[in-house]
Amino acid sequence: MKYSFGIDVGGTNIKIGLFEITNFSLIEKKEVPTPRYNQAVSIFETSKKLMDELLKQHQLTYQDVHGVGFAVPCPVKNGYVVKCPNLKWETLDVISSMRSLLEPHVKVVVSNDANIAAYGENYSLEIPLQNAIFYTLGTGVGGGIIIEGKIVEGRTGAGGEIGHMPIFEGTEICGCGRTGCLEQVCGTKAILGYAKELSTVHESSIDFKELTVKKIFDAAKDNDPVGFRVLDRVAKYIALSASILSVSLDPDVIIIGGGIAKAGQILIDQILKHYRMYARFGTVDIPFVLAKTGNDAGIIGAAKYTI
Amino acid sequence: MKYSFGIDVGGTNIKIGLFEITNFSLIEKKEVPTPRYNQAVSIFETSKKLMDELLKQHQLTYQDVHGVGFAVPCPVKNGYVVKCPNLKWETLDVISSMRSLLEPHVKVVVSNDANIAAYGENYSLEIPLQNAIFYTLGTGVGGGIIIEGKIVEGRTGAGGEIGHMPIFEGTEICGCGRTGCLEQVCGTKAILGYAKELSTVHESSIDFKELTVKKIFDAAKDNDPVGFRVLDRVAKYIALSASILSVSLDPDVIIIGGGIAKAGQILIDQILKHYRMYARFGTVDIPFVLAKTGNDAGIIGAAKYTI
Repeated sequence: MKYSFGIDVGGTNIKIGLFEITNFSLIEKKEVPTPRYNQAVSIFETSKKLMDELLKQHQLTYQDVHGVGFAVPCPVKNGYVVKCPNLKWETLDVISSMRSLLEPHVKVVVSNDANIAAYGENYSLEIPLQNAIFYTLGTGVGGGIIIEGKIVEGRTGAGGEIGHMPIFEGTEICGCGRTGCLEQVCGTKAILGYAKELSTVHESSIDFKELTVKKIFDAAKDNDPVGFRVLDRVAKYIALSASILSVSLDPDVIIIGGGIAKAGQILIDQILKHYRMYARFGTVDIPFVLAKTGNDAGIIGAAKYTI
Repeated sequence: MKYSFGIDVGGTNIKIGLFEITNFSLIEKKEVPTPRYNQAVSIFETSKKLMDELLKQHQLTYQDVHGVGFAVPCPVKNGYVVKCPNLKWETLDVISSMRSLLEPHVKVVVSNDANIAAYGENYSLEIPLQNAIFYTLGTGVGGGIIIEGKIVEGRTGAGGEIGHMPIFEGTEICGCGRTGCLEQVCGTKAILGYAKELSTVHESSIDFKELTVKKIFDAAKDNDPVGFRVLDRVAKYIALSASILSVSLDPDVIIIGGGIAKAGQILIDQILKHYRMYARFGTVDIPFVLAKTGNDAGIIGAAKYTI
């Protein structure tokens, strides 16, 4: 039996999973707060400590370990991170940083967290597909593109940054410095803002105190005029962006994940309604599915990426 | 020395090139009219006849031939064509059709003509790149996407159909059955129509009798108010679509080809002006280059695709 670790490094927490990789099953996962200081060193030391603990608990040694995969919240190119504001990393060779703490036979891989999630989600389909587009809808809107079973990392690591495709004529500046981004109509902030805006002209059963995306989408399921319009706008822009990517890449599947996707099948159904109007040629039949692995997509994808 | 054939099958002509593939150089090319009848058979018989002639002329035999590559004007998936209106093909196995006329050692490959052109153009760069997006601008607007050195064919062969990405809010129905396609603002028909429309409100030195794209873009080079506005609109929409693809795929290069690209560097410069406004993150620096191989992109790409 061989084992790999999947490590999902976020600005708040580090999640680690120990996986048996012959049948690919999760043995145990842990979560600790991300260290705050000297992060270019401490994140790897913390990861090593977690790995040591998990191996000891399961009476394993590094001889049983095939690899370690990292998911990190920034663009990655060939194992290098140029800048990661969330982890205060600058020009860091992630692979060498981890390898220096490990025995030489252990393989180390790293990619952007949304790309890794795309990889993990695609792997978690009943039959993993060769070509997949993954959306992660949350505070930020991101994604990952898998072509011929591989993550599209791109020239500078910006591959899969589909939340920042220009999709409408806007004037408000996005975090990326540009206007009209998909994230600006499909991210949490846009959803809450649009619901409040609509509440001034439509009746609604939504309690607007401590407004959440969940409240809005729950109301949409009950045909609330505000809730439904908000859900419909998100669905429309996901569908439009997906139709652009479909006619360019003609993928086998489009996977919708992230916190906002907890809305469930109603979101998929509404996306499909719009998508079928926008899609061209044979791309009209591309299946849309909800992501399955949820919060574990990062550790699953990262461990799988070592194989 | 080994040799391959590149065959570009169009609705009007069949172009064939004999290539020496060790140093990859064109030995000789020929062009004949595409047969009009029984095309599922006659196109392959004509191709075989042309191959026989070229081999004989150069004192070669099929023992010297490594492969035959085809570029065809329709979607292709795993060597199959479902429907090709230009050649009246339906559900045709192109590879078997050609192999049945050849000795077993000869490799046969086929792909869509724009995808093959993308492959040929990328190969013809000083240093071929791993990831490239190719636009072909003409009567139709098409393209091809190369990821990790391979053509993105997609699930149904629609990969690279970037001329039909929805890019504006339009009402006119495109040939693909949808509205708002890139082709409807950047294809020949759109260019001629927009020039005529602008001529009613702007002065122009353009002779509108027997109007051509060349006349309009030549006028643009002389700062003609109509010519320049038409060129600028083409450039703007190419830039917008390229910025969407860039933030998704982050390619190494974007190549602009097809008849309309004969406008030359002024088109690239104007695309870049808009692209730099639309592009996000590191994708702002992606180079745009003019296609080099022109009419031979099909035969070059098809022959190269056999290797």
